[in-house]
Amino acid sequence: MTTPTADDKGQAQAAAITEDEIFAGHHGGKLAVELTRPLETQRDLSIAYTPGVARVCTVIAEDPERAKTLTWTGRLVAVISDGSAVLGLGDIGATASLPVMEGKCALFRRFAGLNAIPIVIDTNDVDEIVETIERIAPTFGAINLEDISAPRCFEIEDRVKAALDIPVMHDDQHGTAIVVLAALMNAARVVGKDITDLTVVISGSGAAGVAVTKILHEAGVSDIVVLDSKGIVESGRDDLTETKKAIAANSNPRGLRGDMKTALDGADVFIGLSSGTVDPQLLGSMADDAIIFALSNPNPEVAPDVAAQYATVVATGRSDFPNQINNVLAFPGVFRGALDAGATYITEEMKLAAASAIAALVGDKLAADYIVPGALDERVAPAVAAAVEAVARG
Amino acid sequence: MTTPTADDKGQAQAAAITEDEIFAGHHGGKLAVELTRPLETQRDLSIAYTPGVARVCTVIAEDPERAKTLTWTGRLVAVISDGSAVLGLGDIGATASLPVMEGKCALFRRFAGLNAIPIVIDTNDVDEIVETIERIAPTFGAINLEDISAPRCFEIEDRVKAALDIPVMHDDQHGTAIVVLAALMNAARVVGKDITDLTVVISGSGAAGVAVTKILHEAGVSDIVVLDSKGIVESGRDDLTETKKAIAANSNPRGLRGDMKTALDGADVFIGLSSGTVDPQLLGSMADDAIIFALSNPNPEVAPDVAAQYATVVATGRSDFPNQINNVLAFPGVFRGALDAGATYITEEMKLAAASAIAALVGDKLAADYIVPGALDERVAPAVAAAVEAVARG
Repeated sequence: MTTPTADDKGQAQAAAITEDEIFAGHHGGKLAVELTRPLETQRDLSIAYTPGVARVCTVIAEDPERAKTLTWTGRLVAVISDGSAVLGLGDIGATASLPVMEGKCALFRRFAGLNAIPIVIDTNDVDEIVETIERIAPTFGAINLEDISAPRCFEIEDRVKAALDIPVMHDDQHGTAIVVLAALMNAARVVGKDITDLTVVISGSGAAGVAVTKILHEAGVSDIVVLDSKGIVESGRDDLTETKKAIAANSNPRGLRGDMKTALDGADVFIGLSSGTVDPQLLGSMADDAIIFALSNPNPEVAPDVAAQYATVVATGRSDFPNQINNVLAFPGVFRGALDAGATYITEEMKLAAASAIAALVGDKLAADYIVPGALDERVAPAVAAAVEAVARG
Repeated sequence: MTTPTADDKGQAQAAAITEDEIFAGHHGGKLAVELTRPLETQRDLSIAYTPGVARVCTVIAEDPERAKTLTWTGRLVAVISDGSAVLGLGDIGATASLPVMEGKCALFRRFAGLNAIPIVIDTNDVDEIVETIERIAPTFGAINLEDISAPRCFEIEDRVKAALDIPVMHDDQHGTAIVVLAALMNAARVVGKDITDLTVVISGSGAAGVAVTKILHEAGVSDIVVLDSKGIVESGRDDLTETKKAIAANSNPRGLRGDMKTALDGADVFIGLSSGTVDPQLLGSMADDAIIFALSNPNPEVAPDVAAQYATVVATGRSDFPNQINNVLAFPGVFRGALDAGATYITEEMKLAAASAIAALVGDKLAADYIVPGALDERVAPAVAAAVEAVARG
């Protein structure tokens, strides 16, 4: 086993970024629309615009599928948000969420060669969001829902997926879930445990918590305990939302009741997906060779150096520590693969394939501090796209 | 007076464009999203995305105006259509209209350096279109409404303008009106008549007809007669829509009733803005040194060589004849000027200034076959932008 380089691990030198750098890096925006062909002569104009364009419109009117190849929509992802759950900032609204959506679009371009444009919607009403997306849907080839608060995000995603025949994915749920599964597959290898035997504690029952619970369940992890701010989500509680009732029905096979102390006792894995913290004392009760993913950003539920006292494998969401669990490993390739295949739906099988593809790239460089490729690893998006496309094409 | 070159006049060689050329020119679409800055290092990522982007979001949440400089919206135009009146093709729907909207966006980029993205809306309902645009409006810096059928386009534009504090313009109305006014100012110079003394006949009372009537009226043309398919629009008719009642109230000062024959008798100017034709026999009754703008595309209301038998100045909408009256002379500069000035509204004064700026560029090269700059004339958009910006800044 060779030692991975800093680049492989994607670890940054931790020199502080200044405010000036940040604002200079955003001035005028991070995206630009460019032409794919020159528009210099009258002939160019006559082809791209009138009269030539009329022929293309007519062909698409007769066969709308041809819009996928005769317009940019075949490779165009809309990054859509209502600004209700932006980073750790909460409900800052549509306009203030724009820089995040632009950043996401930039990542789509950079890693998957896709066109992506931000669309922010100035309402928090579920019906209005769904109907707005449906109405403008012919504009796009795929839809990445972003930073929409739970539990609204679940209904919005379900309804938009049902209404449209293009790929739709709420990345805060499924992008996170895919990368967590990839990381857990490799972490299990590091500690020599079978992923299906792991007892997993998930702190947080929001968008990411729900999706991670679901994908781990699908991947064969049978003993998952989920906690919200009130403690273990279990069917005996009378304060559960519909979403949490579903979690309760699909987790906690040992019927645990109580708090984090109860949940962590003997657990193999802690996955933090809340913005809370975990008492380090409790981590000492975990099983030998424990795995801790403290993914709250920018402040992990437990500092990595503290977590390392109790666990063999530690991961965070931050770029300045080893094992960064970052959605950018998943979403560019997932959408690229789905669009390349002409898929009308992003299935659970595609997500599992994406996770396996990410995990496989670590290969024989696997180590406690290298369980996922770095965020800048150029191999990731093409590998994920190929895996997703293969599933989509069946 | 020097002889203008073919380039100045924007006349194309009329070699036929092939189907293969057209489809090759559209394959994969005509637009691409690109990054404005490299995204190569972990540091780049940390500035453009988390954690750096959070600081930018927070600043915009406190002061939404800062989105104009800290996101791409300050130079982003949405080209929005429901596909209900696309070129001469009619109501072909949202998806089939995409190639035209992409083409328009390409022209925004090419001539005004603006970012522009197509947004097509899959409904023809006025209320739904207006509310959809209002909801997604924070996504953009300005809105170009395109190819929406009359009379819906009037209500939609009015309501969207009233609801939003960003520049909104229905180009089929106002882009056309600006360029027609510019052309008429110079045509009047060619024939040595004062524009305010002209008697003008407008064939067509759709989007363009209404807007041209309005801008000519504002420019001081007092004797305008408008015709629809039933004849002269005049207040004695009992079949007028609200829009046509407004036309009747602001035109036809001599109280004419009847058909094109009555209207054209002694008229100085014929402006064709319908998809119909005009009987060449009737053109013979126009005044000496008549002006004929046969703008229906691709088939002018009267062939230019036929029109030339009856008129001193002839213009069409086509690139393969002299004097092409094309919206591309107006909209890129109008939006660029409005955005540069931070204008919240596109006013009548801005449109008049745009027309004057276009007309002025012809300068001392003015001739019967050179009344407007060519569609590819690089001077036009900057001159229009400067004129509009100057008005906007007061």
